[in-house]
Amino acid sequence: MGPDFNQITNGNVCSPKGFLSGSIYSGIKSPGQDKRDIGIIFSEHDCVSAGTFTRNSIVSPSVNWCKSIIDKGNLRAVVANSGCANTSVGEQGFIDAKEMALITSKTLNIDIESVAVASTGIIGVELPMALMRKYIPQIEISKNDGNGFARSILTTDKRTKEMAVSLEIGGSIVSIGGVAKGSGMIHPNMATMLSFITTDVDIDKSILQNILTYSVNKSFNQISVDGDQSTNDTVLILANGAAKNKKITSLEEAKFFADALEEVCIFLAKEIARDGEGNTRLIEATVNGAKNQKDANKASRSIISSNLVKTAVYGRDPNWGRIMMAVGSSEIELEESKIEIFVNDIQIVAAGIAISYNHQSVVIAMNQDLIRLTVNLNIGEASGTAWGSELTEEYVVFNSAYTT
Amino acid sequence: MGPDFNQITNGNVCSPKGFLSGSIYSGIKSPGQDKRDIGIIFSEHDCVSAGTFTRNSIVSPSVNWCKSIIDKGNLRAVVANSGCANTSVGEQGFIDAKEMALITSKTLNIDIESVAVASTGIIGVELPMALMRKYIPQIEISKNDGNGFARSILTTDKRTKEMAVSLEIGGSIVSIGGVAKGSGMIHPNMATMLSFITTDVDIDKSILQNILTYSVNKSFNQISVDGDQSTNDTVLILANGAAKNKKITSLEEAKFFADALEEVCIFLAKEIARDGEGNTRLIEATVNGAKNQKDANKASRSIISSNLVKTAVYGRDPNWGRIMMAVGSSEIELEESKIEIFVNDIQIVAAGIAISYNHQSVVIAMNQDLIRLTVNLNIGEASGTAWGSELTEEYVVFNSAYTT
Repeated sequence: MGPDFNQITNGNVCSPKGFLSGSIYSGIKSPGQDKRDIGIIFSEHDCVSAGTFTRNSIVSPSVNWCKSIIDKGNLRAVVANSGCANTSVGEQGFIDAKEMALITSKTLNIDIESVAVASTGIIGVELPMALMRKYIPQIEISKNDGNGFARSILTTDKRTKEMAVSLEIGGSIVSIGGVAKGSGMIHPNMATMLSFITTDVDIDKSILQNILTYSVNKSFNQISVDGDQSTNDTVLILANGAAKNKKITSLEEAKFFADALEEVCIFLAKEIARDGEGNTRLIEATVNGAKNQKDANKASRSIISSNLVKTAVYGRDPNWGRIMMAVGSSEIELEESKIEIFVNDIQIVAAGIAISYNHQSVVIAMNQDLIRLTVNLNIGEASGTAWGSELTEEYVVFNSAYTT
Repeated sequence: MGPDFNQITNGNVCSPKGFLSGSIYSGIKSPGQDKRDIGIIFSEHDCVSAGTFTRNSIVSPSVNWCKSIIDKGNLRAVVANSGCANTSVGEQGFIDAKEMALITSKTLNIDIESVAVASTGIIGVELPMALMRKYIPQIEISKNDGNGFARSILTTDKRTKEMAVSLEIGGSIVSIGGVAKGSGMIHPNMATMLSFITTDVDIDKSILQNILTYSVNKSFNQISVDGDQSTNDTVLILANGAAKNKKITSLEEAKFFADALEEVCIFLAKEIARDGEGNTRLIEATVNGAKNQKDANKASRSIISSNLVKTAVYGRDPNWGRIMMAVGSSEIELEESKIEIFVNDIQIVAAGIAISYNHQSVVIAMNQDLIRLTVNLNIGEASGTAWGSELTEEYVVFNSAYTT
């Protein structure tokens, strides 16, 4: 946590002023899973909003509904379900997503075009609309159900992912609350990443979109291979202005808020990576001294996406050759003779060649819960960080019998 | 095998006229592995030659040596070693690669710039030049050691990969022989793929490069993620004209030869994919009806590169949603409502939606040694095929304790 903002104890999407949430169990998820599968986030006041969505060629109609309203309306609510992705179900998918929004808008007495829809779960199965019609109107919203909402969006996640921070902007206390559900997968190209962020800041809408995109690129997009996204990936932010700060209307004024938003997004992204299936440990790959930001991001993603790096970490094996090749396979600009590699601060490569490090101390370092792989390219100023998880036998067992 | 060429029984790189090979055990590979670790291919006549190399930003000096001579000279020999990749060893790497070429050129009494060098094995360790100096001159070349050469380039491969075909071109019998070593990995971005192809065809050099690049794009590059290549990947072809056919000087005249070369490359590429670590079965993903060739290749590669598809195949799970999302994550152009998916000829998706297939019969189909996943996009005419392997617990176990 930086010096400019404070983490709120047990903070969640209800921490910012004017935000409520609710959740319920309708029966979409199987009984063995967490007993909440529909959730609502609601702002008592009008909001400005922004979003980023999957670039997969196959897109869930729930995402298409959000895309159809994100620019014209100002979101005031999100309704999300777990257990069913509402994907690959033909034209019925959009009809159902829109009806989910309609039911929610009637329940909350707001405009249908201010209700975003998000779905996650098994694909190829239609949304059970009878359950939606029955249970959405029964959802009770309050200031106290932030954690309930966090549970309602989980699928294979082992725990909820939520946090909130507060910071002072021009004499007013502004809060940001965030919730996410993990891809549930080590290699998150086939599962859904959802995140919803609430804030009571008063901010210009286009500035909000700008800094959301920037934060997502530094966080959620750095736990995935470039372009490898699920059909349902969605990140939404709602800002209702209830903090009554002097309205932020420029990127310069937005700086402190943007830093805090980035911190929230990175926290949630790391929680997702750490919670990969068959996994409890986190790999953090940082590439420093790259020619430009794109190269730094790409190379760090390449490291955490490599099956061979993932298995080497699992085996506590400081196999620097695999790290070297993963960096190279990103095809970025580099000078081999300038490369340095560190494992949890212990240097193992200098000038592109292995140095005589104490093997056992690196093995012990790799036994920690956080394994930091740092690559210094020493040819520029840009740095990028990406997060991923180990590849374990448990992952294979889990995913070779997931569904159908 | 097509109607225009015949597979030669026990064919290898010595099948074409005028090609000899030899191999020896020098001690670079550990004693538990196949007891050959240096091999030579030699043409008795001058050749034209062509090559394709890794695009990894980190490149083995052995590859750099090849690149430095491929355009100026005409290769007559290849010297290859297994057990040591000659990568990430600083400036000594190029000095050693060049000396390997020099020793070989003296042994064969040919020009140093006609000797290609290839290395595969552990990276970060210098080539044991004392062994090279002692054993390369002892290698006996003959028509009978094609299989010995194939063994000398293996690392974690479980078996040799070689084949040869013959075809008639303008009244002359022309032969093509090929050998490869596998990536040894399911996801081949971190290991080395080597292939050497010999032919007695008489052909223009630029035509040869052209059709080699085309064949490699349809074969070896379709068992790898785009851009994900090892530091040492090398494919070389040597054509010595000993078949005395009317010289091929245009792409039109090269057609039959190109078809046969493609067949050899695809055979070897499939053998590599089938021989992935912890794996004996082959996944063949074909995408038909794509808008263009690039999309077809990209989408088929995306399928065989997906950890979730790989684990689903391992679990005999016809999880069409994962196939659908893997296609979509390649970000190619598609219309969801036109997509059809087949598993070993059994249709499971029509119009973008699952159909009522017999689940058990698909599970049984997925129990075969070759699992063919076919996706019809139905929006164009282009087709692409890619090959990969399952993801198994054995792969994780193997790779979490590979070296160091």
